[in-house]
Amino acid sequence: MKTGALLSVVDTSTAALASREPVLGSLERVASARGLDSDAERIGELRTFLAHDLVDIEKDLETIERGPTPMHESAHHLIGMGGKRLRPMCVALASKLGTGFSAAARDLAVAAELVHSATLLHDDVVDMGDKRRGAPAARVLWGNAASIFAGDWLLVEALVRVRRARLSDVLDRALGVLAEMLEAEALQLARRGSVDVTMDDYLKVVVGKTASLFRWALFAGGRAGGLDDAQCAALEEVGSKVGVAFQVIDDVLDVEGDPAVLGKGVLGDLAEGKTTYPLIVALERAPALRTELERALAGGEAHLDDRVAKIAAHAMLEVGAAAEGRAYAERLVGEAMTALGRVPDKPARRALESVARSIVTRRS
Amino acid sequence: MKTGALLSVVDTSTAALASREPVLGSLERVASARGLDSDAERIGELRTFLAHDLVDIEKDLETIERGPTPMHESAHHLIGMGGKRLRPMCVALASKLGTGFSAAARDLAVAAELVHSATLLHDDVVDMGDKRRGAPAARVLWGNAASIFAGDWLLVEALVRVRRARLSDVLDRALGVLAEMLEAEALQLARRGSVDVTMDDYLKVVVGKTASLFRWALFAGGRAGGLDDAQCAALEEVGSKVGVAFQVIDDVLDVEGDPAVLGKGVLGDLAEGKTTYPLIVALERAPALRTELERALAGGEAHLDDRVAKIAAHAMLEVGAAAEGRAYAERLVGEAMTALGRVPDKPARRALESVARSIVTRRS
Repeated sequence: MKTGALLSVVDTSTAALASREPVLGSLERVASARGLDSDAERIGELRTFLAHDLVDIEKDLETIERGPTPMHESAHHLIGMGGKRLRPMCVALASKLGTGFSAAARDLAVAAELVHSATLLHDDVVDMGDKRRGAPAARVLWGNAASIFAGDWLLVEALVRVRRARLSDVLDRALGVLAEMLEAEALQLARRGSVDVTMDDYLKVVVGKTASLFRWALFAGGRAGGLDDAQCAALEEVGSKVGVAFQVIDDVLDVEGDPAVLGKGVLGDLAEGKTTYPLIVALERAPALRTELERALAGGEAHLDDRVAKIAAHAMLEVGAAAEGRAYAERLVGEAMTALGRVPDKPARRALESVARSIVTRRS
Repeated sequence: MKTGALLSVVDTSTAALASREPVLGSLERVASARGLDSDAERIGELRTFLAHDLVDIEKDLETIERGPTPMHESAHHLIGMGGKRLRPMCVALASKLGTGFSAAARDLAVAAELVHSATLLHDDVVDMGDKRRGAPAARVLWGNAASIFAGDWLLVEALVRVRRARLSDVLDRALGVLAEMLEAEALQLARRGSVDVTMDDYLKVVVGKTASLFRWALFAGGRAGGLDDAQCAALEEVGSKVGVAFQVIDDVLDVEGDPAVLGKGVLGDLAEGKTTYPLIVALERAPALRTELERALAGGEAHLDDRVAKIAAHAMLEVGAAAEGRAYAERLVGEAMTALGRVPDKPARRALESVARSIVTRRS
């Protein structure tokens, strides 16, 4: 269980919300019984820090009303399905490095989740995704059109909250991050069906699509908490590193699943322009794989057969791509820890350290 | 030709841009030769006011770069196809009621056009529109996904410019208007395939989808020009009235076309949740039409046949729906003229009056 448990602690699906207190309490007891005192201590601290805050965030998210149109239903559905709420948690913890989780920080935390939700709604339309958070995607239930408008709407709702927080550079950076996210989406889209992707290309997309919002969340929270420029810059560095590590581990977890499923997933991802860290490693080390995949992709869907899927899975296992991904993520988290040394030494800093560490130790 | 010519004056497709000066000059000569001295004077004034400003706006719009991805191509394509540039013109004219078309006003003018473009990109995906501005829609050329991201991107680019103008209430209102536009889109979407629409519903959508951006454009320009609260409120009123009139006349122009084409268009619009002013009038006056359309829509696409199309067209002609639409738009423009009496009596006011009047006199 260890620190990896921290991520499940912040699962805020409606069911989990109702029972959060007991869940946290029992985690703490388990950790303590196993002699993981420092972990138990951290979980206990996290509960003290965030229990009320997370409930407040959920309350605000619930104001994204249900009905009366498919647009409203779509937004409500996605947000109501929960999720890790990692981004709002980053805002909350960063604010607690300073003066605390104020109304402004709360607006920014909710904004971070709304931006994330907006991108998921549009991504599902773009990728024709059918599942999201273990349930049918909103677009399956209410149609693509409703998800397009719902994404637009949540983006605007996010900016309304950022604006309300009245922190000038937080708003400027929010717009900058949104532009960055869209450039990354565009890059990924342009690359659909191509295997001609370098590690550099991969990282450009990950930094833009994933890390930029983590970076903003930590900056926004720090600013709301009154931290100075140097401290906020340190938080931005933490956000960037942790954001990339988070995505790399996401990629690795996919690879560590069933090789048969994995291979097919890789091909599907490629068709959507998505490459993963382990795949890039495999492509760099095993040039034959690139030729094989290029041929398969050139032939269209029909050629994405089991044989090619197996070759891809095998190549990744062979070169130890998953282990290499974990090592890279661990290095990034280590660098994030160093950067955290430049922010105030408060309980919130230890909580952020735990969250960062839990990113590389998580198993799902 | 009369004042209706004003709208074509501001056609800023790339071809028109290159030859704007001669076009304006000749319009002025024609108006003068026909003894339309006051119109000639107004056109001359409009040229003096806006010639350089519109060129500057186009220059800024061109910074929405071509390539390197389908997202960039999609945005560039739509903007490059021109359009009336009515919204930026509203910003420019309103700013000239005060201190003039400053860098801030220019940013706001470009933002107005970018917001409009963003909605067109998303609308074309939602409605599966194939044509836009007489050319293939961006989504036809680069796919739906690219148009979704391009719309998101232009929205963000618009807000970056609004932010840069550093006018606090202009930014607040921009976010409010965006939310309003999306609520209207959502309402229209919810109503797809239904004939159960009142004049009230229709107006709610038109106010949100069309008039709100005109309202914002005039407010933003006025504020950039340093107008006071009362003057800006008057401009908002002008924008609302003129915006609704613009849409009603758009609807009427459709009705005044070939009845056969018209009937089919009505059915297509209804399937997309779009109702027009003349149709609502016809539905109110001829209840049999409602039943007939309901039956046709319930039967799906296959039942949207020529017979029903003819019935719809006939009903609209019979009750004089187009004339009623024109009368309504004229009343709104009259009210807008009255509101314009509350803004500084400058040449820009007369230009705005001409633009408002040209909305009801235009024939295409």
